[in-house]
Amino acid sequence: MIKSVTKIKVRYAETDQMGFVYHSNYFVWMDVGRTQMLEEIGLPYNEFEAKGYMLPVIEANILYKSPARFNDTVLVHSFIKTQPKLRILITYELFCGETMLCQGYTSHVFVKENVKPVRPPLHFTEKINSYFDHNP
Amino acid sequence: MIKSVTKIKVRYAETDQMGFVYHSNYFVWMDVGRTQMLEEIGLPYNEFEAKGYMLPVIEANILYKSPARFNDTVLVHSFIKTQPKLRILITYELFCGETMLCQGYTSHVFVKENVKPVRPPLHFTEKINSYFDHNP
Amino acid sequence: MIKSVTKIKVRYAETDQMGFVYHSNYFVWMDVGRTQMLEEIGLPYNEFEAKGYMLPVIEANILYKSPARFNDTVLVHSFIKTQPKLRILITYELFCGETMLCQGYTSHVFVKENVKPVRPPLHFTEKINSYFDHNP
Amino acid sequence: MIKSVTKIKVRYAETDQMGFVYHSNYFVWMDVGRTQMLEEIGLPYNEFEAKGYMLPVIEANILYKSPARFNDTVLVHSFIKTQPKLRILITYELFCGETMLCQGYTSHVFVKENVKPVRPPLHFTEKINSYFDHNP
Repeated sequence: MIKSVTKIKVRYAETDQMGFVYHSNYFVWMDVGRTQMLEEIGLPYNEFEAKGYMLPVIEANILYKSPARFNDTVLVHSFIKTQPKLRILITYELFCGETMLCQGYTSHVFVKENVKPVRPPLHFTEKINSYFDHNP
Repeated sequence: MIKSVTKIKVRYAETDQMGFVYHSNYFVWMDVGRTQMLEEIGLPYNEFEAKGYMLPVIEANILYKSPARFNDTVLVHSFIKTQPKLRILITYELFCGETMLCQGYTSHVFVKENVKPVRPPLHFTEKINSYFDHNP
Repeated sequence: MIKSVTKIKVRYAETDQMGFVYHSNYFVWMDVGRTQMLEEIGLPYNEFEAKGYMLPVIEANILYKSPARFNDTVLVHSFIKTQPKLRILITYELFCGETMLCQGYTSHVFVKENVKPVRPPLHFTEKINSYFDHNP
Repeated sequence: MIKSVTKIKVRYAETDQMGFVYHSNYFVWMDVGRTQMLEEIGLPYNEFEAKGYMLPVIEANILYKSPARFNDTVLVHSFIKTQPKLRILITYELFCGETMLCQGYTSHVFVKENVKPVRPPLHFTEKINSYFDHNP
């Protein structure tokens, strides 16, 4: 399993007139979380794009449990729990203190400029597999 | 079934450096779609908030199929296909021309200021049920 | 003078916890306004990018007068009042009904991929000048 | 003079199809900067709203000099350089490394729920003045 924790301070711009964070902003925070997770394991996202790869979201899901408010400190826990093949599944749990705000997932495939899915680049597969292949 | 179609013109601000619409913006468009759908059936969202109700998203999901681009005209098809009880399920299909961009759903509950779920207001239930009770 | 009017319906996502539209969103609406204005005069923005030009904002300003609210219908009046040379100045007045919400401006220069300012493409200059050269 | 420096990591969502940060997002970062500045001098923004005050933007301006890119680390320098009366002027300089990205300002007035300008709350004035009254 791969895990990373990212700290987010809630911005005023992210609230709506309910007085809570607007629901689509959690997807942005999950993106910030996975960007940091990939960087922490030596796979900075910028390098993929520099080599002509993109890693778009092909599915996104959130179950909302408790709302975040302006100026809250939110922790985004990001996980890769299953060894990816073509499809890469990342899961998330977001907390404010002890309170779980929401949990969700995104799934991704690598694409090249023609927007067709391709196999992940080799150094991605090797790096990710190194977290899963210890106990074969 | 209740159905509504909303037209969206893609804004430059909604693109990202992949050259496509950033994935969380589709959730904003779905929100625009359900706002219009509720207004069309005589249940403008503003009136709920004026009466102390809020209708937050408790789950959100999208399957992405084809990317939208700057200046595209996107049609958001919004549906209420099942008669809501406490939980209101809205589904969406987004198109650019003949191409389906994505499909998704959001589910909602009414809450009052204490952020606790409550039964929908009576005029909501009566109005919505009028679309489903024709053929009992 | 060149003028265009664009209609915007305020989205829930654009509000903040004050209950009004968050101030940076007016810049997005001004962008929607100038995109439509350029398209109306036969200079669709997409064509510039297709030819390797970009038209970034180099200054942006807004004076806020009255706040917009969720579901308001906002009219963005966009103007090119002075014949552009290297620098293109676009001004805006935003209204909700009779009420002026804000007025502002953006200025722009054409750049090529190296992010260096360049002269506007010839067909831009010719088209724009045709609105100003009637009374020399 | 009051000064504060806030660190921002550029999010993918903040880019647009030019490959740079979309111009309105710098206003959001300036907001993050002034929120932190007020908190650092013992005037957390939340407390104003808890007491029925709001501090909307009444003018906003940016001069763009160099674009920020995805994953850049941006430093927002926020300043109150002149002793505020009714109107509070905050200025900003944003940097990525040694490169100035942009400079700008926002001006603000306190309002109460009727959206009419009011004098700043006393503890605001006293606290801010303490930074300016040393050398009368």
